Amino acid sequence: MGEPTLRIVAFGGLGDIGRNMAVLEWDDDMIIVDVGIMFPEEEMLGVDLVLPDFTYVRERAHKLRGIFLTHGHEDHIGGVPYLLREVKAPVYGARLTIGLVEVKLAEHRLQNEAALNVVEPGEVIHAGAFEVEFFTVAHSIPDSCGLIIHTPLGPVVHTGDFKLDHTPVMDQHTDLTRLGQVGADGCLLLMADSTYADTEGYTPSEELVGEALSNIIHKAPGRVIIATFASQIARVQQIVDGAVSAGRKVFVTGRSMVDNVAMARRIGYVQAPEGIFVGVEEMRRVPNKDLVVVTTGSQGEPTSALTRMAQGDHRHIQIQEGDTVVISANPIPGNETAVARNVDNLFRLGANVLYNRVANVHVRGHASREELKIIQSILQPEYFVPVQGEYRHLVAHAQLAESVGVPKGNAFVLTDGDVLEIDENQAGIVDKVPSGYVYIDGLGIGDIDQHILRDRAHLSRDGFLVVIVPVDKETSQVAGDIEILTRGFVDRSDNEAIIEEAKRVVLKTLTGAAHLAEIGGINTQIRDAMSKFIYDRTRRKPMVLPVTVEV
Amino acid sequence: MGEPTLRIVAFGGLGDIGRNMAVLEWDDDMIIVDVGIMFPEEEMLGVDLVLPDFTYVRERAHKLRGIFLTHGHEDHIGGVPYLLREVKAPVYGARLTIGLVEVKLAEHRLQNEAALNVVEPGEVIHAGAFEVEFFTVAHSIPDSCGLIIHTPLGPVVHTGDFKLDHTPVMDQHTDLTRLGQVGADGCLLLMADSTYADTEGYTPSEELVGEALSNIIHKAPGRVIIATFASQIARVQQIVDGAVSAGRKVFVTGRSMVDNVAMARRIGYVQAPEGIFVGVEEMRRVPNKDLVVVTTGSQGEPTSALTRMAQGDHRHIQIQEGDTVVISANPIPGNETAVARNVDNLFRLGANVLYNRVANVHVRGHASREELKIIQSILQPEYFVPVQGEYRHLVAHAQLAESVGVPKGNAFVLTDGDVLEIDENQAGIVDKVPSGYVYIDGLGIGDIDQHILRDRAHLSRDGFLVVIVPVDKETSQVAGDIEILTRGFVDRSDNEAIIEEAKRVVLKTLTGAAHLAEIGGINTQIRDAMSKFIYDRTRRKPMVLPVTVEV
Repeated sequence: MGEPTLRIVAFGGLGDIGRNMAVLEWDDDMIIVDVGIMFPEEEMLGVDLVLPDFTYVRERAHKLRGIFLTHGHEDHIGGVPYLLREVKAPVYGARLTIGLVEVKLAEHRLQNEAALNVVEPGEVIHAGAFEVEFFTVAHSIPDSCGLIIHTPLGPVVHTGDFKLDHTPVMDQHTDLTRLGQVGADGCLLLMADSTYADTEGYTPSEELVGEALSNIIHKAPGRVIIATFASQIARVQQIVDGAVSAGRKVFVTGRSMVDNVAMARRIGYVQAPEGIFVGVEEMRRVPNKDLVVVTTGSQGEPTSALTRMAQGDHRHIQIQEGDTVVISANPIPGNETAVARNVDNLFRLGANVLYNRVANVHVRGHASREELKIIQSILQPEYFVPVQGEYRHLVAHAQLAESVGVPKGNAFVLTDGDVLEIDENQAGIVDKVPSGYVYIDGLGIGDIDQHILRDRAHLSRDGFLVVIVPVDKETSQVAGDIEILTRGFVDRSDNEAIIEEAKRVVLKTLTGAAHLAEIGGINTQIRDAMSKFIYDRTRRKPMVLPVTVEV
Repeated sequence: MGEPTLRIVAFGGLGDIGRNMAVLEWDDDMIIVDVGIMFPEEEMLGVDLVLPDFTYVRERAHKLRGIFLTHGHEDHIGGVPYLLREVKAPVYGARLTIGLVEVKLAEHRLQNEAALNVVEPGEVIHAGAFEVEFFTVAHSIPDSCGLIIHTPLGPVVHTGDFKLDHTPVMDQHTDLTRLGQVGADGCLLLMADSTYADTEGYTPSEELVGEALSNIIHKAPGRVIIATFASQIARVQQIVDGAVSAGRKVFVTGRSMVDNVAMARRIGYVQAPEGIFVGVEEMRRVPNKDLVVVTTGSQGEPTSALTRMAQGDHRHIQIQEGDTVVISANPIPGNETAVARNVDNLFRLGANVLYNRVANVHVRGHASREELKIIQSILQPEYFVPVQGEYRHLVAHAQLAESVGVPKGNAFVLTDGDVLEIDENQAGIVDKVPSGYVYIDGLGIGDIDQHILRDRAHLSRDGFLVVIVPVDKETSQVAGDIEILTRGFVDRSDNEAIIEEAKRVVLKTLTGAAHLAEIGGINTQIRDAMSKFIYDRTRRKPMVLPVTVEV
C-alpha cells in the first residue's frame, strides 16, 4: 500500500437516466452521493423499479460516513430505503429533500432506522476524511443543492441536477459566487449534470413558463386544468400565483399531487391567500371560468388523474367543451406515446389542449451547452467526470469539457462500476466493481433475472400452450385424454380445429416413442413436434410446455 | 332517394399514423385513395401489422372503379395485397409506387391477380363518375403524388404526404401551378397532410441535408456509415453524390436497403459512375477513409444492420475508433428509446455518432404550418378534411384551415368510419360505418382480439402458474401429486419453498370442498386461493390456471 488515493466509483446515472449514485473513498472513509432509482425500460417486463447494485457498498459498510442527497427527485433519493436496509449511515440533505425521504421511509416502515439530517446551504458536514459543503442550485424542485466535497487532494464539486436560471421561481439561483471561490482556490474534480449536454444554447428561465401559464389562466374561457410533476412545487406556486391574480380558485387532484401540495403548504413552500384552495364540494360550486385544477398525469401514467380525465372516468372532473388543458412537462423518453394519447383523447372530449410543442408551458430543469461551459470556465477543474445522462450525453459533455479547458485526457466517461483513482499526480480508471441492474418486482428485490424477462417477452408475443399427457406409470402408455391449455395464442372457441389437430400430433409423436418413461426425452419430442405444427399452421411461436402426469 | 351525393369515408390515418385509406363514393361508383398499414403500438403485443377494416369496401365491391396510390410508403400501400385478396379493381400509381407494390404482391404470390397501372403526373384516369388526375408533390420518396379527383360537384384535392421544398432532390416539386388552376376554377374539398400541423414555420429543404451529409463525408477521418429509411431513395442519391465528390466508394447493407437500391438503380432513380458501388469482398480492400456505408436501422429495429453493428455482431462491419456514424432520420414516435440505445452503443464502440439533435442530417418529409397555409391560400377550398395525422394534428389542421379562409364549420375532423356527405348546398358527417383495427399476427388476419391482447399483457407482467390436480374419476378425490408449472413468475430453483407451499394451499382448498366433481367451482376455488396466497407472499399477480386431470 502506497499513499492513499481518492477513488470515485460510479453506480448509475452513468449510461442511463436514474439510479444516480456515486461513491467517494479515501483510505478508511467512504461517502455516497445520491441513491437513485430508475423506472423500468420497455423490455423490463413487469419490473416495478430498478435499483443500483449495493454489493460494493455493503462489503465496505464499516467505512461509510454519510449519505449525501442533492435533491428530492426519485432518480436521486428513491433507493434510500433499500440502501438503509443494508447499511447504517447518517443521511444529509436540504429541508425538502429530507422531508421527501421521511415520507418514503415511513412507507417502508423504516422511519426509526435512519438518522436524517437537514442541512442548510453553506453548511459543512464532517465525514471522516471528507468535508461536505452544500450550495444552492437552480433546478425543477426546491432545495436543490450541489456539493463541494473537500478531500485531502482538493475540492470535488458535484453539481447535482442544475441549470443557470437568473430569474428562478422562489429565488433559488445556482451559487456561482461560491463556485468562483472554489475555482480560484483550485478545483480538483468537477462532476456535472449531462442531461442536456447535446443541446445547444441556454435553457430558458422558469419565469417564461410562469408568464405563459398566467396568460393562459387569465384568457381561458372556462376551466383551466394543468398537469405537471407532483414534485414540481415551484410550478405549482406559479399556477397558484396565476390563479390568484385572475381571481380563480385552485382544486388539486391526483394522490401524489395532493400529498405534495399539502406537505409544501405545511412547510411554507407553497403560499396562497386564505380560501384559494378548494375541496371537492366547494369546487363543484365554483363556476368553470373561476377555476384552476392542478393534477398529476403529465407523463400519461395509466392510473393518473389526467389519464382518467382523458378516458372520461375521473371521479370529480368530466372534460367538456370550453375546458383548457395544459400539460406543463415534457414527456420523459419512453412516455411520448402515452402522453400523445392523452392529448388526443382530451381533444376528442372537446377540450383545447396546450402542450409543449404548441405553447411555452414548460422549460427543462437542466443546463444546456452554454451553461455547462460557464460552469467549466468558473471552476477550471483539473479533472472532469460527466454524470446524470445517457452514454451519448456523457460523451458530449466530456468533449465539451475538453473543448473549454479541461486538459486533454483528463475528462473521464465512467460507466457503471468503473473506479476512477486520483492521486497527487494523475488520474485513471483502475478497476471495475460489481454493478448493474437490480430489479424490484412486487416484494422481490433482485430475484428477477434475464431468464424470467426472456420468458415474459416470449409470453407477451405469442402466449403459451401447456400440453398435459396422462401416462400410466406401470405400462408407460398414454392413459387418458390429452389436454391442451392455452392463453394469449389464439381465441380457442374460433380455433378448436387447430387444438384438436395438435392433440393428434402429440399422440402421433408418442406412438412412435419407445420409452414413455424417459420423460425428459419425450417432453422434448412433444415440444418440437408441437412447435413445428403450430408454426407451420399459424407462423406463430407460442411457448410450448409439455407435462406428463403419471396416473 | 334524392339526388346523388358525394360521400367521403375515412378509414385510418385519421386519429393515428398509418392505415391511410379514404373511400369516395358517388351513386354507383366508388374509388379508394391509398391502402396503408400501421405498425403495432406498444400494447398490441405480438401483433405484426395493423390493417384497416375492409368490411365496408367488401360489401360494395361491385362499385369499386379503382385504387389510387399517392406514394410508396408502407402506411399508404402496405395494405394493398390484403385488400386485393378481397376485392378486384385496377390499381393506379406513379412508377416507383407501382414498382414497390409489385414487390409486395410477389411476396404474397398475388402478382397475377392485380391490374397495376403506371400513371404519369398530369395523366387523368376515368373511374366511373370520377376523373382522377395525378400531380407531383415533394416528399421523402420519389414519385410522390397528390390527386385531383374531379367529381360531379367539383374537384377534390388530396395532397398525399407532401411538403413545399423549393430545392428538392431529383427536382420533384409540389406542383403549385396546377393547384393554382384548380383554385382558380374552384376547389370543392381539400384533403391535406396533417402530420406537422402543430409545428410552426417551414420545413427545411432536402438541400440542407445534402450539404450536411456531403460535408461529413468529406471531412470524416475514417469510414462514414449512414443509416436512413430504405425507401428514402433520394437521400441515397445525396449520399452517393457526396461519396463521388469525396472520391469514396459506397457499400450498401441491410436487406431492404440492398433490394431498394438495386431496384432504384435498375429504373434509374439512383445514378452513380461505374465502380462506385462495391460488394463485400471489394469493400474489405477499400481503406476506411475511402468508404461510405449506407445501411438500414435508422429506427433502431432489432434485427437491422445498424443495430447489429451497434451490438458488435454485424457480419461485415465492425465499428471501430475513427468511424463516423450518421443517423439520417428522426425516430418515429415509439422508436425513440431503441434509436437512443443504438447511439449509445455506437459511442461505446468508439464511433463518433451524428444524429438529428446534434447535426442537420435529416429533414422531415411533411409540410409545417406556414406551408399548409400556402396550400389553403392557393386552393381556397369550400370544404376541408385533414388527413394523415394523429387526432391532435387533425384538430390543429382544421383550426388552421378555418383561420386562413375555410368558412367556419366547413372543416371536418373525421375519425375512422366517419362518413362525410356533400351535396350542392352543404356538407356534414352523416354516418359511422364499421372500421377499426384489424390485427395481423403470423398467418392470422383479424383473429387476434382484445381478449388475447389482455392475456398477453397479463403474461408479460407476471407470467403464469398452471396447477395440475389429478382427480380420481370414481371417488372424486385427489389422486396423486399436485404439479405446478410456472414461467415468467419467479426463478423456480430459488423459490422451491413458495411452490411447495402453494401446493399445500391447493390441497387445503380441496380438502374443504364437498364435490370435487363440480370441476368449474373447484377451479375457481383453486384459482382464488392460489392468487391470494401468491399475492400475499410476493405482491405479484401471475395468471393462475388450474387443471383437473381425471385419472
